[in-house]
Amino acid sequence: MDIGFKELASGIDTVWVLLCAALVLFMEAGFAFLEAGFIRAKNSLNIVMKVFTDCTFGMLGFWAIGFGLMYGANVFGLFGGSGFFLTGNLQHIDLSIPIPAFWIFQAAFAMVVASIISGAVAERMKFSTYIIFTFLCTSFMYPIAGHWIWGDGGWLSKLGMIDFAGSAAVHAVGGWASLAAVMVLGPRTGKYNADGSVNVLPAHNMHLAFLGTFILWFGWFGFNPGSSLSGLNASIAHIALTTNLAAAAGGATGILFTMRRYGKADPSMAINGALAGLAAITAGTAAVGPVSAAIIGTVAGILVVLAVEFFDRIKADDPVGAIAVHGVGGSWGVLAVGLFARDGGLLFGGGVQQLMVQALGVISVSIWAFGITYLAFSLLKATMGIRVTRQEEIEGLDLNEHGITAYSDLVTGTLKGVGHSTVHHQDGVGLPVTNTITVR
Amino acid sequence: MDIGFKELASGIDTVWVLLCAALVLFMEAGFAFLEAGFIRAKNSLNIVMKVFTDCTFGMLGFWAIGFGLMYGANVFGLFGGSGFFLTGNLQHIDLSIPIPAFWIFQAAFAMVVASIISGAVAERMKFSTYIIFTFLCTSFMYPIAGHWIWGDGGWLSKLGMIDFAGSAAVHAVGGWASLAAVMVLGPRTGKYNADGSVNVLPAHNMHLAFLGTFILWFGWFGFNPGSSLSGLNASIAHIALTTNLAAAAGGATGILFTMRRYGKADPSMAINGALAGLAAITAGTAAVGPVSAAIIGTVAGILVVLAVEFFDRIKADDPVGAIAVHGVGGSWGVLAVGLFARDGGLLFGGGVQQLMVQALGVISVSIWAFGITYLAFSLLKATMGIRVTRQEEIEGLDLNEHGITAYSDLVTGTLKGVGHSTVHHQDGVGLPVTNTITVR
Amino acid sequence: MDIGFKELASGIDTVWVLLCAALVLFMEAGFAFLEAGFIRAKNSLNIVMKVFTDCTFGMLGFWAIGFGLMYGANVFGLFGGSGFFLTGNLQHIDLSIPIPAFWIFQAAFAMVVASIISGAVAERMKFSTYIIFTFLCTSFMYPIAGHWIWGDGGWLSKLGMIDFAGSAAVHAVGGWASLAAVMVLGPRTGKYNADGSVNVLPAHNMHLAFLGTFILWFGWFGFNPGSSLSGLNASIAHIALTTNLAAAAGGATGILFTMRRYGKADPSMAINGALAGLAAITAGTAAVGPVSAAIIGTVAGILVVLAVEFFDRIKADDPVGAIAVHGVGGSWGVLAVGLFARDGGLLFGGGVQQLMVQALGVISVSIWAFGITYLAFSLLKATMGIRVTRQEEIEGLDLNEHGITAYSDLVTGTLKGVGHSTVHHQDGVGLPVTNTITVR
Repeated sequence: MDIGFKELASGIDTVWVLLCAALVLFMEAGFAFLEAGFIRAKNSLNIVMKVFTDCTFGMLGFWAIGFGLMYGANVFGLFGGSGFFLTGNLQHIDLSIPIPAFWIFQAAFAMVVASIISGAVAERMKFSTYIIFTFLCTSFMYPIAGHWIWGDGGWLSKLGMIDFAGSAAVHAVGGWASLAAVMVLGPRTGKYNADGSVNVLPAHNMHLAFLGTFILWFGWFGFNPGSSLSGLNASIAHIALTTNLAAAAGGATGILFTMRRYGKADPSMAINGALAGLAAITAGTAAVGPVSAAIIGTVAGILVVLAVEFFDRIKADDPVGAIAVHGVGGSWGVLAVGLFARDGGLLFGGGVQQLMVQALGVISVSIWAFGITYLAFSLLKATMGIRVTRQEEIEGLDLNEHGITAYSDLVTGTLKGVGHSTVHHQDGVGLPVTNTITVR
Repeated sequence: MDIGFKELASGIDTVWVLLCAALVLFMEAGFAFLEAGFIRAKNSLNIVMKVFTDCTFGMLGFWAIGFGLMYGANVFGLFGGSGFFLTGNLQHIDLSIPIPAFWIFQAAFAMVVASIISGAVAERMKFSTYIIFTFLCTSFMYPIAGHWIWGDGGWLSKLGMIDFAGSAAVHAVGGWASLAAVMVLGPRTGKYNADGSVNVLPAHNMHLAFLGTFILWFGWFGFNPGSSLSGLNASIAHIALTTNLAAAAGGATGILFTMRRYGKADPSMAINGALAGLAAITAGTAAVGPVSAAIIGTVAGILVVLAVEFFDRIKADDPVGAIAVHGVGGSWGVLAVGLFARDGGLLFGGGVQQLMVQALGVISVSIWAFGITYLAFSLLKATMGIRVTRQEEIEGLDLNEHGITAYSDLVTGTLKGVGHSTVHHQDGVGLPVTNTITVR
Repeated sequence: MDIGFKELASGIDTVWVLLCAALVLFMEAGFAFLEAGFIRAKNSLNIVMKVFTDCTFGMLGFWAIGFGLMYGANVFGLFGGSGFFLTGNLQHIDLSIPIPAFWIFQAAFAMVVASIISGAVAERMKFSTYIIFTFLCTSFMYPIAGHWIWGDGGWLSKLGMIDFAGSAAVHAVGGWASLAAVMVLGPRTGKYNADGSVNVLPAHNMHLAFLGTFILWFGWFGFNPGSSLSGLNASIAHIALTTNLAAAAGGATGILFTMRRYGKADPSMAINGALAGLAAITAGTAAVGPVSAAIIGTVAGILVVLAVEFFDRIKADDPVGAIAVHGVGGSWGVLAVGLFARDGGLLFGGGVQQLMVQALGVISVSIWAFGITYLAFSLLKATMGIRVTRQEEIEGLDLNEHGITAYSDLVTGTLKGVGHSTVHHQDGVGLPVTNTITVR
């Protein structure tokens, strides 16, 4: 038979990467429902549509432009310059798997960055502007940072930065971009009072939020172990182990810390603790041992609670905690590699060299992500506008942006004041374009 | 060690096909929740039960009869005649994977056909009759068409028809069978007015619908790449690429086209656009390039919007758009192979030969599916009846067919008129058999 | 190249086991939503938090202690004594996959046992005590029974007991532990009347319950075939086949049997039938043929209906049917191996030897699970308490244990009496800690 070692190895690797890519792509459902669950019903369909936009426009942007900027032939260590629309020179990508397998895995990562940000801007950002933004995010903002860390000849890659599956490239980038976005966008109407006090705008459906969380955790089996890009990589099992221990430790910490701090086990913080543990372990998943992974997750579980409180105090209104989970959790994870790496970590006798490279790396990509997002949001604000009107925000984005609510048959509290939809139904359209909710 | 090239290759292929089969089987959850979300709350549990019937009775039918008719030893190029209950002569199936792996993957496909149809007949078809129908569908209707295209010596297979993962065999068959079903069944009570105008019966839970959509997209990673039946097939990565680009293009088109046409981005059409893109790319996923895939998805995203409007205009009441997504989207995809195939496509200098074979193929299986379903529904109508009573329809199928509603604790609009359940609770039954909802 | 047969084989096996482990871990979402859907809205977030506790505290317990007790070096055939925190001597584990891959797969199994029990104690067990219990379950209770059957030199393993993927080790153990738990805990307030009659406390969201069911079925593709621990195991396809046929037969039987018995197809019993079929086939999935698998599933589908009625009659209040599905279904499945095994089964001419070993095995682990759980719950009852107060139970565990309800925006029936939350909101906490629901 004409199948030899090379074909078999390539087959194993391709099967592995494609199935891991499917898991990462499914994480979009995780983001959609985590975010939808954490916000009010009247805006919850809009956020799912935004994540769906990441999957559609975002994927197309990464195909047309982003992949080339990230993984194309190196230009000054700053960006790639080939491979747009998956054409042209990609010879430097020396993998055992076909380029399309590599592409689909990377495309799913780009979509994750956009979806992290979608949560932070929930309940007030205009849908049409979001389409532009997600395209910019996957085609330009993320790929540049990604090139530095993972690209052919990227400057941080050359310095020896360790960011196995993207605590920096994906999570810190997404998290700090989120901070810039909410600073330009401003808080939700009714979130902060004139006297400085804060109103709770409650999570409308915690089952949706947990569904999203379980899907994200499940997807992380693809995200981290899949980043090996090879099923023959001897460390994929170790990666699955550390990933899960960090998640478990983060979630357990979120529960225990809030039981102590608030007197009750806070479900949102159980979720955020686990997700912060996952975001944190992502950089060092292959480099640290299981006990270190549990410590990294534990610290992430505490940091995320404090960070959510902090960003609320400075009125950076982030309805889903994206900045805390991905920005703080991811950044902590990048630094933690410098502390806990079995080879080169400060606590394992490796000195401060790795830690400093890690710090430089995460600071660099974070400044880039924050700065370029601040600029992009400011330009979009000055041109097409980034916020819905106050009236639209009060009525809900679902009805105003999409002519429909998430739950037409279920009576929802935030929809009580809405009265009749102002959207006219177009006859001849079979699927619901509008609906009228009148709660007496 | 006694493991050689052949065993390793078979192992890779078996792992691949089993995991892809799991993904396709999980698509049943996708259909269940897509359909449940798109219809009214009072019938939404019934539709999930129908899809569950596809998974149970439908799977057993494919095991007992369908697999033999589809993949058994060829009889006149029209059907298979061995392999019932997975016994007897199956020597002609020459694969690197064990027969049971092939079977489970194919069984999941058969269930998909039934589940496509379940959506079209939602909100009015009798449950007991549906059990009979799903059994007929997976044991007889689908396998015959499938044999023509994929079976041992099937006549369309011999003509050179290209239908890699079933735009014709699964989607066109399911879609045009749906048209026949709704024609015999008639529209939902209250859908069309005497003056020709159309009422919107709104989607009761768009989060459920999107959950279904994300699961279906996820499952398509198994549906298309898995149809290679080998993890060593060099094109599986290419297949994943074209599949996802078509989905993204279809979804993006659904959003943009409705923003232009209706003034708002329609979530239902974002969903249907992506699904139509997926149904369309399924035939040519291995044969066309990425740019062609994006074009095929874009066209599907426009066609599906126009088709939903068209079928509503002719009063073919399809609550979930199954005819438009699978019938129109799938048929377009079969033809598109004749246009875009890199080898043999009209636009790539291949002449009209392939296009004509594709047209013949999709027309043949569509006529079969339409005709046999029309006949089956007519016979079922004349014997056991296919519709619930008007009273049952108004009260909701959930309460009348299952003695329970989907949401016993959540107040739903369509349940407001119901008053007390007429179903008596049977003591000694631990799990809920009934519930009473009285909304004052 | 330096990759040979051994590395390729190990790669295939590792990819297989890791992806199957991901599927099994995702089953936690299945348990969470199955259980949440089956109970009342006011306690539905608490149950998800409990399953999340299995994923976090439970996983950490299995890492610290459980794995060592189960798979460590044998001590008297009764437990393992090495491998705590994955350190120390694990040389006796002779697998083609790395220990961490084996660990993550086994950890997911341990969590399943805890999650089975979580359902039985729903709607009344204290959250803080549950944390202790889940830790005990995965670190001690389950691993001991598991060692007997699967461990290095376990005494039931030596006797030749066949329990391929855990009808005994996981399902019977979880099911009979559930019975002990509910006996100590007592029934939910309002479930049983003084005159002996039974009140239905209805499933609040059947879509959630079905979502959980579909996820569990999907996860079983990992649970059973993955228990081969090798993608090169020639029987993994056969295992997938028998697993699915048993599930389909169980679900179909649940539907038909309730149509006959209650006059309507009961969705809860459709679900429980399929799950009981799965729990039952798990022991013999590799040993029995497809027809036997369908019979095993059919019997399980009948048994589960009768068992749910029986346990309700004896006032063992199990809100989700865990005892019936896992205890009865699993036990039946262990015995069924003795009847239907193609090699050694009574009905296949193998005599009663295997059947007697199977009976001894399932009785032994069931007594262990029942006894140790009864003891643990009694001790916890006497010390920290195992039940919430009657007042808390009436108001709902979600509000009292977590300061939040599952659906803050959706009006729920069981929340109508609640009025204002008694929980004070803590300013500065971004994510919802409380909410106030006032209907009318």
